[in-house]
Amino acid sequence: MKSDRISARQFQADGSFAGRLQKLVREVVVPYQYGILNDSVSGAEKSHAVENIRLAARKNTGEDVPPEAFYGMIFQDSDVAKWIEAAAYTLIATGRDEALESEVDGIVDLYAASQHEDGYVNSYFTVKAPGREWTNLREAHELYCGGHMIEAAAAYYEATGKRKLLDVMCRFADCAYDEFMHRNTRGVPGHPEIELALMKLSRATGEKRYAALAKHFIDQRGQAPNYFVEEEKGRGWNVWQGSAELDTDYTQSTLPVREQKDAVGHAVRAVYLYTGMADVAKETGDETLLSACRALWESITRRRMYVTGGIGSTGIGEAFTVDYHLPNDTVYAETCASIGLMFFAKKMLENEHRGEYGDVMERAFYNTVLAGMQLDGTKFFYVNPLEVVPGISGVAVTHRDDLPERPGWYACACCPPNVARCVASLGVYAYSENETTLFADLFVGGTVETKKGLSLCCETQFPHGGAVKYTVSGAGEMTFAVRIPAWSKKAALNVNGEAVDLATAVKDGYAYLTRDWRDGDKVELSLDMAPRFVYADPKVAADSGKAAVQMGALVYCAEGADNGEVLPLSVDTSVPPQALPFDAALLGGVVPVEARGFRAEPAAALYSDEPPKQTPCAIRMIPYYAWANRGLHEMRVWLPAR
Amino acid sequence: MKSDRISARQFQADGSFAGRLQKLVREVVVPYQYGILNDSVSGAEKSHAVENIRLAARKNTGEDVPPEAFYGMIFQDSDVAKWIEAAAYTLIATGRDEALESEVDGIVDLYAASQHEDGYVNSYFTVKAPGREWTNLREAHELYCGGHMIEAAAAYYEATGKRKLLDVMCRFADCAYDEFMHRNTRGVPGHPEIELALMKLSRATGEKRYAALAKHFIDQRGQAPNYFVEEEKGRGWNVWQGSAELDTDYTQSTLPVREQKDAVGHAVRAVYLYTGMADVAKETGDETLLSACRALWESITRRRMYVTGGIGSTGIGEAFTVDYHLPNDTVYAETCASIGLMFFAKKMLENEHRGEYGDVMERAFYNTVLAGMQLDGTKFFYVNPLEVVPGISGVAVTHRDDLPERPGWYACACCPPNVARCVASLGVYAYSENETTLFADLFVGGTVETKKGLSLCCETQFPHGGAVKYTVSGAGEMTFAVRIPAWSKKAALNVNGEAVDLATAVKDGYAYLTRDWRDGDKVELSLDMAPRFVYADPKVAADSGKAAVQMGALVYCAEGADNGEVLPLSVDTSVPPQALPFDAALLGGVVPVEARGFRAEPAAALYSDEPPKQTPCAIRMIPYYAWANRGLHEMRVWLPAR
Repeated sequence: MKSDRISARQFQADGSFAGRLQKLVREVVVPYQYGILNDSVSGAEKSHAVENIRLAARKNTGEDVPPEAFYGMIFQDSDVAKWIEAAAYTLIATGRDEALESEVDGIVDLYAASQHEDGYVNSYFTVKAPGREWTNLREAHELYCGGHMIEAAAAYYEATGKRKLLDVMCRFADCAYDEFMHRNTRGVPGHPEIELALMKLSRATGEKRYAALAKHFIDQRGQAPNYFVEEEKGRGWNVWQGSAELDTDYTQSTLPVREQKDAVGHAVRAVYLYTGMADVAKETGDETLLSACRALWESITRRRMYVTGGIGSTGIGEAFTVDYHLPNDTVYAETCASIGLMFFAKKMLENEHRGEYGDVMERAFYNTVLAGMQLDGTKFFYVNPLEVVPGISGVAVTHRDDLPERPGWYACACCPPNVARCVASLGVYAYSENETTLFADLFVGGTVETKKGLSLCCETQFPHGGAVKYTVSGAGEMTFAVRIPAWSKKAALNVNGEAVDLATAVKDGYAYLTRDWRDGDKVELSLDMAPRFVYADPKVAADSGKAAVQMGALVYCAEGADNGEVLPLSVDTSVPPQALPFDAALLGGVVPVEARGFRAEPAAALYSDEPPKQTPCAIRMIPYYAWANRGLHEMRVWLPAR
Repeated sequence: MKSDRISARQFQADGSFAGRLQKLVREVVVPYQYGILNDSVSGAEKSHAVENIRLAARKNTGEDVPPEAFYGMIFQDSDVAKWIEAAAYTLIATGRDEALESEVDGIVDLYAASQHEDGYVNSYFTVKAPGREWTNLREAHELYCGGHMIEAAAAYYEATGKRKLLDVMCRFADCAYDEFMHRNTRGVPGHPEIELALMKLSRATGEKRYAALAKHFIDQRGQAPNYFVEEEKGRGWNVWQGSAELDTDYTQSTLPVREQKDAVGHAVRAVYLYTGMADVAKETGDETLLSACRALWESITRRRMYVTGGIGSTGIGEAFTVDYHLPNDTVYAETCASIGLMFFAKKMLENEHRGEYGDVMERAFYNTVLAGMQLDGTKFFYVNPLEVVPGISGVAVTHRDDLPERPGWYACACCPPNVARCVASLGVYAYSENETTLFADLFVGGTVETKKGLSLCCETQFPHGGAVKYTVSGAGEMTFAVRIPAWSKKAALNVNGEAVDLATAVKDGYAYLTRDWRDGDKVELSLDMAPRFVYADPKVAADSGKAAVQMGALVYCAEGADNGEVLPLSVDTSVPPQALPFDAALLGGVVPVEARGFRAEPAAALYSDEPPKQTPCAIRMIPYYAWANRGLHEMRVWLPAR
């Protein structure tokens, strides 16, 4: 059964977990990142992103701006776009705010002024490489930046009703339509993103041509001869040295998308592409395309995904590698990739509501995505390792990407604003709906309005508690479908105190409640929050003989701040881990978990014949998302099991 | 107590383990590699090494040879040098052989003809880059190739008494002496090797200047400002693209050698350098230099060495990384590096006889060095992983170096001839001597002649058996010092049937027997060959919660050929592993070991809450050196312990 994303305006978080995160995004992250983008935060990596757009606007109006005035990545514009999108969702989530709107409007004015007459807009090409537009789709990120700005435009329009950026981006999309539907009809983007953005733009404007262009890009991708190989011939310039060695897997262009079975290449590109594919499949009813999406979903979630919902096993190409290769210490698991995995999961849900899509979306959000941001909202992880050892992580040449602490900002700053926009729009991921049904895909405290006029208020301490209570306002017939996570071994659901028989109510991971709802009706879901050990398929060499701990959706880790040295620890899996009382003062409020285990005594030599003496001990664990907030420590998600 | 290397001519192996290996080297490896070097083996990677020298000789005599006629690595000459050295030791080990000598003589004639008037000789510079000699010491390997050819010359002279190559290399060394003692006095080799070679040349010729040049190179290394940084300024050419990023650790030149405490950079370069340092320390009595050697020895063997005696934790720079970073699957552990570790150990023994040097030399030889060569002598590992998974090893971009099977030859073919020369000259590593004492550093079946006229015949099945019997021929006073390996928990030693009290006889890992020996005297050593579990320091993240198995000096591994899937296996360390009967038909004759353990049943999902069902099973293990001789399989040295 298909469904649609709700409008961000239909959801309002309360003061519980997600609401507090959104408040943090409004009060700290959005202003901090605005400062970064405007180069007014001292000590942070230079961004220059807004200045690039200002320079482009000046050049566009005839001023003399030297090419070398551009600074930063070729996709620097996208940082601004993601920030606008985050700001837009923040205006919905935490209320209209003139000061913030005026900041956004200021950037929108600059951006609009930088748009060429034909609708093309990109500060890199305007300032630094005029005349080279559209000639290096593989590397140059024009369609990627445009896609992000389209998403920003749609969000800002949704938040404020202001059309200026939306109109700018429609003109950009029209320009791209002309280029790729009429002139360069084989051209496809090196970094997918425009596809999912065009689908959003099509919905925001009602203009079918944008969806058609999205479908066109998807249909063209991977057709022989490979566009990127052809494009490069005789071009005479590349963005990055050595890019002459063209790996078509990196851009998911080795095969036509309908023939792709394995998730390969750059992980963010992959999931952005798959999201666009799933969206086009939904709109067109293209079963072949949906089948490819299902195969790629299985490739990721059954063979190439970390227990934290991280994806991308190596920093070499920020990429997937091969089945079951999931090293914990030299992982990539980019924050953006898990955000993209949420997009993909959400679009698969909109195609067909199956619990596994929601389960993975939840896994990615509550673990890798949230771990991407320091609890105070000022520092970010790009890479999310599942094991760090100070002195090795971030130090050894093999571990340069796998930092043991979050740095302030990155030269390539894709992740921080991505987390911000994801958190600010969490309601959109929490619910979907169609003519008959409201789906609760995530458990997020707050109120959702349905298009039918009913509203549901969700009260929960999730992810720290397993009681989820929905109270209906208004009345009318509707199906309410709530996900029963696969991790909840026992679950109880009742409506107005009457137990629902889950054996009959649940289909594909969702419990369906169809009623003529009355004002004040209550739906209560109780999930099994007993901490539990989790085991990886033994094919995962890095995890064989080990166990991880989960409580509900949260993956836990053992960190040095609680345990001293972590590497000598092993868990006793014969004793179930125990939840300790919720500790409001710890890491913004978490439920610590205690496992029983052993600590190996320090060794006398690098290799000994004597087994290290094992002393029984308690192992204190915290949610993975909260790691690296207390200084430099060893950390492990997977512990040897004995 | 200092000692010297014996001459290779003083030792003759019998038909046991080492003797059979030497026979294989003579009958298969040396002829096969001769074919490779002369490009007459079909299907193997092109070498062109001999042809390069032929071209250099032609050019040197005035013929027109185009630069592009050179083919291969800049250090291609060194493959020829190592082959000559292997051939030379083979002539000692398995007997004079006119056909082989004539092959060597043919190459020596070419090489001599390629020597410039000033003594300089190198086919790359002669053919491809004349005029650039000595201008890129960091990359250009002239001193490295020269060093290897000096070693070859000394060995061939030792084997045959023929001086032609020795004279050529004396002229080369004289040329280098002039260049580096008088003109470019700050210049040092990018790849150490010439230092240890000059020490050999000095001993072979009695010419002190060569030892002085070795000392000079060692003293100059790492002095500020860094020579390689200075050298590069304005040179305008590099051998390898991107080499502009100069990592001084890579060449062990960040600090003066006496201040170096950590083994860093390219592992082969490191141990070749340390060997030269230890040799100069021995000759000069330089305690500061010896102290640095001890610190570097500890850095390697206590914090940066695999249980197999492999060194170099990453393929990035073929290098050491940081303390306790010893990944099993993305390891480098180059065969040549373990050979170099044997050199270093041997030179440390010559400085001071301590058992740990012999223990490590033995560990490196019987595990990583031997694993470098297929049992049939025709294929070689450059990289020696401790864990392979077909489909990942050699396939994933992170595992490109870590092949699951030995290829035939390499474009960079340093390892195969290095194994050959090491095996052919094993007697040199097995014994050292001084005025009073003969030291038995390794247990190798065969007869050693002492300089005093006594000889000892060693009979043993080592490494597959722990009984070692020495029979004396001749008579006279002498101390016989035999290493008691640290791995042997129980050891018994008797002379003519009378037990020796090891508590008083053993000092620093050697049992000293001082007597007036009579013809027919017998020394019998019995070592503890009970298979045992070995545990790594928990600081080694890759091995925490795991155990390996050793029997005597041999590290064992579990391989798919015996066990099917290996990743689901864990060992029960409460039950000691058992040696099975020696199986002459298995892998050239080995003692298989059986451990008790468990096999995890196939998993239903990538991550499950249910622990995988563990079925008790026997785990069959083979010596690590013999792995990958039965097709493509999973293999693990370290198994999860429960």
